[in-house]
Amino acid sequence: MSTDSTSESTPAGTSDEAEVVRFEDVLAARDRLSGIAHRTPVLTSRTLDERVGAEVFLKCENFQRVGAFKFRGAYNALSRLPAVVRARAGWQGVLAFSSGNHAQGVALAGRLLGIPTTIVMPRDAPASKRAATEGYGARVIAYDPATERREELAARFMEQGDFTLIPPYNHPHIIAGQGTAALELLDEVPDLDLLLAPCGGGGLLSGSALAVAGRRPGKCRVVGIEPELADDATRSFRTGVLQTVDNPPTMADGTRTPSLGSLTFPLIRRHVADMRTVPEEAIAEAVRFLFYRTKLVVEPSGGLGVAALLSGALTVASRGPDAASFPARRIGIILSGGNVDGPVMGEILAGEIS
Amino acid sequence: MSTDSTSESTPAGTSDEAEVVRFEDVLAARDRLSGIAHRTPVLTSRTLDERVGAEVFLKCENFQRVGAFKFRGAYNALSRLPAVVRARAGWQGVLAFSSGNHAQGVALAGRLLGIPTTIVMPRDAPASKRAATEGYGARVIAYDPATERREELAARFMEQGDFTLIPPYNHPHIIAGQGTAALELLDEVPDLDLLLAPCGGGGLLSGSALAVAGRRPGKCRVVGIEPELADDATRSFRTGVLQTVDNPPTMADGTRTPSLGSLTFPLIRRHVADMRTVPEEAIAEAVRFLFYRTKLVVEPSGGLGVAALLSGALTVASRGPDAASFPARRIGIILSGGNVDGPVMGEILAGEIS
Repeated sequence: MSTDSTSESTPAGTSDEAEVVRFEDVLAARDRLSGIAHRTPVLTSRTLDERVGAEVFLKCENFQRVGAFKFRGAYNALSRLPAVVRARAGWQGVLAFSSGNHAQGVALAGRLLGIPTTIVMPRDAPASKRAATEGYGARVIAYDPATERREELAARFMEQGDFTLIPPYNHPHIIAGQGTAALELLDEVPDLDLLLAPCGGGGLLSGSALAVAGRRPGKCRVVGIEPELADDATRSFRTGVLQTVDNPPTMADGTRTPSLGSLTFPLIRRHVADMRTVPEEAIAEAVRFLFYRTKLVVEPSGGLGVAALLSGALTVASRGPDAASFPARRIGIILSGGNVDGPVMGEILAGEIS
Repeated sequence: MSTDSTSESTPAGTSDEAEVVRFEDVLAARDRLSGIAHRTPVLTSRTLDERVGAEVFLKCENFQRVGAFKFRGAYNALSRLPAVVRARAGWQGVLAFSSGNHAQGVALAGRLLGIPTTIVMPRDAPASKRAATEGYGARVIAYDPATERREELAARFMEQGDFTLIPPYNHPHIIAGQGTAALELLDEVPDLDLLLAPCGGGGLLSGSALAVAGRRPGKCRVVGIEPELADDATRSFRTGVLQTVDNPPTMADGTRTPSLGSLTFPLIRRHVADMRTVPEEAIAEAVRFLFYRTKLVVEPSGGLGVAALLSGALTVASRGPDAASFPARRIGIILSGGNVDGPVMGEILAGEIS
């Protein structure tokens, strides 16, 4: 099942398409983001180490600009727009469809680079997200998801104007940008033997896996974590055939994407060792744990790695002789974001920490 | 009004008693805490800098062991208990009265040093705080504040057993220990010109002021911040006569102490430049700001410095020619702790961030 990065064979489900993003692209993205994205801190918790039975290093992308790793990919992608595109007469800038962190990432990147941004978001998106996106200078277009389909909207926009679409994950520059978080973590903690990253569309997970494969080949495994309710990537990983979910009701809103992409799926098949899923209660417990014990505000999607360890969905070998465990002593976790609305956090905290 | 640390004269309200704690004691405390207390990170926020009009450096004592700076003083005090005391036949360890962070600080310090700890807390203290204190191995004694007075309880304990009382702030080793947070901040950001610290009993504020006076005499002013509802220290500072409050109903529970102490008051008069008070709404706004914009869990008392800046209770000169402003470009703030119950945070977040 595991397809580690040093494997000589080409596992089923991978293709040459994966080669459109390489470790060198992650290195180049790091240079491009230098001095612009935050080099976020890596924090530790004695309590977490004791609970897990290993040393855990939390890469705090909740402290990233716009509150999530998404800024990395968005800035990398926008900064690589060819000059010839930007100079085109009538070019209207970039277009993105997102009600979440990708929207804010694109909006801020556009402001910093002097590129107009148009963000299409559902009419029922939280007012705070719309306000934040507009605050970065983006034009926000609301649509009614009950009566309009996103794809038709996209087609209409592209017909009516000269926009460059920036997808949220299935784009080589997005993937390379997202990989810079893991790269920074490995620069700071070079001897990781396990890295956990949440998985929605797979941009963060595939970018992280590329960074690990380039920096620490064969010595650090990468495991992607999904909500049980949105387990399409895990099923895709196991079957080798792309699986989908339809608007899954998980609180981890960053992972509600319908499926992996044509770029992220083969990269994940090639470079990721395994996938694990966690139930909603484990996600809530992780968010509570991070709030009470580490004093970090982490959104549900951002807590997936911690959820996997605390719930036992993933165990490390030092805990016992379980063959399914990973022989890990030093574990990195990408805390991918911290954008959680107050009422949602209030509901999560209303439960008791176990 | 301001009595800065380079003043040659002895301002009214100070006394030789202040000399029982000196900068050298803060340095010694730092050595004692090395490798035991966390050297907490210093974080920054572009949004905060823009709002304030200066560079702001947040010393994250919410990440300290037990979730607050209180561990520093407690460990310093317990580690300095004379061997002759600890070896006394029938010695029952240390005793502390606290329902808050001092309780947890003493309990953990006791566990680390092999010293028995007894914590007396009101019967109506939050169950989570009692559980955390017991979790560190302390014996917890509950009393009914409606029918029993704390002072009588203390006298009874000291009569019935051989305990060493560790007060929460009015103790030289406590003050010296609390000063190590500001010392670390100055080591990391040496050119601060303003430092803000919350003030309850004044242990943190006086220790911080000692650290600044020793490390950066005449170049960095220290300002203490209190809730308006618990403004005893501000009134004491202004009048030179010790003022009190009686169980003030501020949400900043770390500042509900009745007054400054005989040690902290003269130190504050000598080394603190000014005091400011903030209304409850400003405290709530600071906690919300820190949650949403910096992704930090900070308790209300811990947010006082940010509250002073965001509310305009304290302005810096770069904002305008206001004579009451401080000419500050680089401001340090001690985020003193992060122990806030979920329901309280839920209520605070239920307000709208302005």
